Amino acid sequence: MKKRILTKYLQKYIGKEVLISGWVETIRTQGKIQFLIIRDVTGKTQVVIFGDDKLTQIVDKLTSESVVNIKGVIKKEAQAPNGFEIQAHEIEILSLADNALPIPVVGKGSDAGQTARMDWRWIDLRKQERSLIFKVWTEMENAWANYCVENGYIRIHSPKLMSTPSESGAELFHVDYFDRDAYLAQSPQFYKQMAMASGFEKVFEFGPIFRANPSFTSRHDTEFTGYDFEISFIESHQDVISEEENLIIAMLKSVKEKYGDKIKEFYGRDIAIPTKPFPQITLDEAKKVLSEIGIKSEKDGDLSPEEERGISKYVLDKFGHEFVFITEYPKDTRAFYHMRFEDRPNITKGFDLIYNGLEITTGAQREHRYDVLKQQAIENGLSIESINYYLEFFKYGCPPHGGIGFGITRFLMKTLALNNVRDVTYLYRGVKRLTP
Amino acid sequence: MKKRILTKYLQKYIGKEVLISGWVETIRTQGKIQFLIIRDVTGKTQVVIFGDDKLTQIVDKLTSESVVNIKGVIKKEAQAPNGFEIQAHEIEILSLADNALPIPVVGKGSDAGQTARMDWRWIDLRKQERSLIFKVWTEMENAWANYCVENGYIRIHSPKLMSTPSESGAELFHVDYFDRDAYLAQSPQFYKQMAMASGFEKVFEFGPIFRANPSFTSRHDTEFTGYDFEISFIESHQDVISEEENLIIAMLKSVKEKYGDKIKEFYGRDIAIPTKPFPQITLDEAKKVLSEIGIKSEKDGDLSPEEERGISKYVLDKFGHEFVFITEYPKDTRAFYHMRFEDRPNITKGFDLIYNGLEITTGAQREHRYDVLKQQAIENGLSIESINYYLEFFKYGCPPHGGIGFGITRFLMKTLALNNVRDVTYLYRGVKRLTP
Repeated sequence: MKKRILTKYLQKYIGKEVLISGWVETIRTQGKIQFLIIRDVTGKTQVVIFGDDKLTQIVDKLTSESVVNIKGVIKKEAQAPNGFEIQAHEIEILSLADNALPIPVVGKGSDAGQTARMDWRWIDLRKQERSLIFKVWTEMENAWANYCVENGYIRIHSPKLMSTPSESGAELFHVDYFDRDAYLAQSPQFYKQMAMASGFEKVFEFGPIFRANPSFTSRHDTEFTGYDFEISFIESHQDVISEEENLIIAMLKSVKEKYGDKIKEFYGRDIAIPTKPFPQITLDEAKKVLSEIGIKSEKDGDLSPEEERGISKYVLDKFGHEFVFITEYPKDTRAFYHMRFEDRPNITKGFDLIYNGLEITTGAQREHRYDVLKQQAIENGLSIESINYYLEFFKYGCPPHGGIGFGITRFLMKTLALNNVRDVTYLYRGVKRLTP
Repeated sequence: MKKRILTKYLQKYIGKEVLISGWVETIRTQGKIQFLIIRDVTGKTQVVIFGDDKLTQIVDKLTSESVVNIKGVIKKEAQAPNGFEIQAHEIEILSLADNALPIPVVGKGSDAGQTARMDWRWIDLRKQERSLIFKVWTEMENAWANYCVENGYIRIHSPKLMSTPSESGAELFHVDYFDRDAYLAQSPQFYKQMAMASGFEKVFEFGPIFRANPSFTSRHDTEFTGYDFEISFIESHQDVISEEENLIIAMLKSVKEKYGDKIKEFYGRDIAIPTKPFPQITLDEAKKVLSEIGIKSEKDGDLSPEEERGISKYVLDKFGHEFVFITEYPKDTRAFYHMRFEDRPNITKGFDLIYNGLEITTGAQREHRYDVLKQQAIENGLSIESINYYLEFFKYGCPPHGGIGFGITRFLMKTLALNNVRDVTYLYRGVKRLTP
């Protein structure tokens, strides 16, 4: 059989016979001439059928979104979308689509409401602007992984089934595990710290994160993909921040190079490569700035979504930077394992990263000293019994270390100027959504 | 602060002052001289302490597996392990290990039984031969991902929470999901096929696979990492087989180049790069061969573990190949979505891949025709209601496609000549094992 040519390479074959394969996006009849727009994963092309009764009969049977093989000769045609079209002489229907398409892929109605788009997600994803999201994600993930591999990281796949909660115990999914109980991991936190105690020194992980979060906001879901890294022999959380900057720059450079034009075309965004170091502001300073620009503090020790947007806009206006690290959170609002400053025991070496108004990272230098860590856990009211296995990691030699959890869907959302994590998640999971 | 030098680069600094960081593997006193072996993620080096009372006192306090920073000058020393040693003039204890190490990292007792090694997994993983496993895995995963990215694949992260079983309904973990029931995905099968219906054309995924399998064998666990790919516009399962061959060759080449010597040193294995095409044998032929060499068939339509080992040995002896594809399985032992031959409706286009005696892959061309697929599901006794959402994927245009599920831990096990998936899993999960 002839080798199939992807639409994006067709221009190299003008005057030649080619085989293309794809979805029939539109069918248009103009007198005795039939036009098809065929879409594959790389683009679209026009096919023209005329003067061949057998072919015309096949096209008469065709429905939108059917899948076909088409053989034909590529001819220049000024009026066709790419300046050429394929004059078909063979059409094979590989899959005939049901006539009653639940949501259209193009044209009127293709901007169906979000519920309909999620119900028929696999049809929604046929749109070029949607598949682009996952192409961009693929590129980001590969850039992160390649950076890590080049810099001596080890990749781990930590277990998602745990015998006790990994963090606070809230928002936890329970699993029936033979004759006992298990829980779904809310983060690989404990297990990537274990790798530090194992001497892996630098690790990263991409994996699902489960949170039984009952909220319905555009930023939340019950299952999402988390990126994590953890590194040893750091001097402070500033080493962690610096590493995250490197990763973000690597991801955005790679995406801009491969998909910058497409992102501009479909999302109207110019990808800017951020300069290092990213701006930093302490939580106290941020609160002061916010108060001066008239945004009221809703809670102590953290920023509300409105405050995140406010401080981000302030930094963008003042420094022209889309990112800002918030540092020096008080201990009361941070996890017990965040290290505290020696000279200011109420302030942690934890930080958040805000990107275009949305928090995308929580990170910290961790407390690696067994006695101090245990004391902090007790202070926070944790059950020592249930986290004892974790505390043990620090008893037999563990270097100073720190790391981050990174929300790749939030990062993607802000890179493409989208407003909802549901659009950048392959299949969204929420309180009321477990299908398809 | 001085920049830390990893032990593998130390030889470049002979005669110079360096800072090293790592674990104190052994402490040895010889008269007034103290020797330390310091281990980091890249190797080991010897440190010598003499003529400095302050340092000697610090070393007197030191315990095995404590974590230290050491400054000193590198001097050539013919009797030292790498031909040089560091004459220390500054030692900082970063983390003092408890004296009662539960399992030793080196020497007597470091080959502790498997239960002890799993209980104290983070100490077990400090051994160089164990961390090597995860370095090799990192390299394999990156090679697979880079092959896919270079060949136009899109990476997906499919949901692990599902409203209905993904496959047969057996060996399923139940999750309490707010006011309803959810199940943990046993494979991304349905969702990677969805990507084919979405026109992604080629996808891959790395992710956790959950199986409530009550068995205790060396090949089974309840949670493991699965690699998957699915590709469209194939002509038959042979296109899938060919793609898997490419991926395996890419992984092994990459691993051999980076870690071939270390694998030889620690596991005594020479990594062989397999030649393409890999041998194939139909299930019927395999049964005949096995019968001739005296291995009895235990079940129809599939190979027992003993038969897998037998046919693998036969192929290795006859063709010098560590891999063999078994093809043409009957429909009764394969999933309902495996496509069947037009002219032999009882035989599927499904296949398995056996590597050094162990099944590491199940793959197939899938049935993409809605009516045929639905009929096959009914024949297999599946509840159409519970898989209706899946059947819908094929109703509105879906190309011919196929793919595989690949057991990376089994692959790793056979590459390193190890006998148990527990050794190649970061943290093993089994019926009786949910910790640490």
